[in-house]
Amino acid sequence: MLGKTPETTIKAAAGNTAHPFDRATQVAAVEGRWRGTASEDYFAFVGPFGGVTAATMLRVIMAQPECAGDPLTVTVNLCAPVARGTFDLAVRPMKATRSTRHWMVELSQDGEVAAFMTAVFAVRRPSWSHQPATMPSAPLFDSIEPLPDSGVTPWVKQYQFRFVEGTPSYGNAPRETLGSAYSRMWLSDAPSRRIDALSLLSMCDTFFARIFHVRGEIVPIGTVTMTTMFHADAADLAEERTTMVLGAADARRFHKGFSDQTGELWSPGGRLLATTSQTVYFKA
Amino acid sequence: MLGKTPETTIKAAAGNTAHPFDRATQVAAVEGRWRGTASEDYFAFVGPFGGVTAATMLRVIMAQPECAGDPLTVTVNLCAPVARGTFDLAVRPMKATRSTRHWMVELSQDGEVAAFMTAVFAVRRPSWSHQPATMPSAPLFDSIEPLPDSGVTPWVKQYQFRFVEGTPSYGNAPRETLGSAYSRMWLSDAPSRRIDALSLLSMCDTFFARIFHVRGEIVPIGTVTMTTMFHADAADLAEERTTMVLGAADARRFHKGFSDQTGELWSPGGRLLATTSQTVYFKA
Repeated sequence: MLGKTPETTIKAAAGNTAHPFDRATQVAAVEGRWRGTASEDYFAFVGPFGGVTAATMLRVIMAQPECAGDPLTVTVNLCAPVARGTFDLAVRPMKATRSTRHWMVELSQDGEVAAFMTAVFAVRRPSWSHQPATMPSAPLFDSIEPLPDSGVTPWVKQYQFRFVEGTPSYGNAPRETLGSAYSRMWLSDAPSRRIDALSLLSMCDTFFARIFHVRGEIVPIGTVTMTTMFHADAADLAEERTTMVLGAADARRFHKGFSDQTGELWSPGGRLLATTSQTVYFKA
Repeated sequence: MLGKTPETTIKAAAGNTAHPFDRATQVAAVEGRWRGTASEDYFAFVGPFGGVTAATMLRVIMAQPECAGDPLTVTVNLCAPVARGTFDLAVRPMKATRSTRHWMVELSQDGEVAAFMTAVFAVRRPSWSHQPATMPSAPLFDSIEPLPDSGVTPWVKQYQFRFVEGTPSYGNAPRETLGSAYSRMWLSDAPSRRIDALSLLSMCDTFFARIFHVRGEIVPIGTVTMTTMFHADAADLAEERTTMVLGAADARRFHKGFSDQTGELWSPGGRLLATTSQTVYFKA
């Protein structure tokens, strides 16, 4: 499945390579294997930010010559921290049907799996269209100050967070009255970058852990798995021509060391672009 | 990874084998391979009901000698209809960490993948516990008449559906005013069976397609992928001692042939047991 031709390598390198996100999610065919590099720019507590790891894995699928259609749904399992340096990406086509293609990607370092992804791509065709969900209200993007950089972890600097509800305010102990797990924010890359499937997937992991919002403090956490459904294909995203999304996130239960987290990403024009859910490990 | 010892086969065959659900999800080690059989009792339009296929794949993980902990999160991709007869199940441990184990299962017939699952198991330990979500209101289970069997498809007979909101009423054409995508129901196996992780996973796929509720008609649909998070481990479920759950489901966008579907399963005592999301193909 691995193309070693110059053509394939060029395809993998396409896009705005000047942007930190494109540099961070770059993949290349090296010595007959696909390879990526853990991004220092997007480093988190114990490894690169999971959103960027996921986007890198999605990019390697899109670099396959037989890749058709656009990402429809993606599940990434983050098994272990990705260490600094390079990693290998093994891509396997699982099944092709008339309208969908199923893929699997394994990310490994020193022969040990650190993450894996399953993805469905689809060639989407016009159909009956209906959006029962309504976009949450928000003042204009420019009317809200971006969150100042907390200096806690590098990846946060790569985004502008403009909170509408649930602005983070963390102390050194759990707050007396628990806060809401719900928050809502405008989000964009910093510097800004036109939204595509790769950045949308990464943005699905930018919601701060719900437990931080509820307890008002930072505790050890980690995303175990994240599933994202794309409600827009490449043509839809091109029509939106946007660099920002409105993101809303919530959680329903924290129990025995794990919680859920759900999220929605909306275009400024009111279209639901992606919905996401993840399972988060926490220590509290 | 395949145990051929009598011990393993017995473990795979454990549980109440008299119940149709346990018969339908049975797995056995035959000639050095794990094998299941597409259940006629749970047949749907073009293959066995996806919930039962998923439960069978989860059962084969639980039958592995090195399986530890309880299911935490499961994603199943249904790539192609499973045909009548037997299927092979290949199980692969992807990664073990201190507290979690990642698995993959492939279901194939005649060497072609029809479905695959990734799953995370965890040994769950006491922690801070908090449930921001509240159980939707519902009259008592017994006070609602079960949905009469429509005769549309066999698997529906295997459950009792007692609708609180959004009782199905389908015609032969889309209704003039679109209905709500939201519905809520009591659900139990028929005959009743104590809820465990296997039946909970299957129940996550019992919500009728949201497009049926919205348009008031049955159109061709298929689950492409379903992700479920378990908020209760085996000890929690044993404590609940229940045969019924309150299920609520919704959808946010129907667009270019696919929609999302989200669901929650609640214990009668008000505990959130599982949350689920799926991507559904539709023709309309």
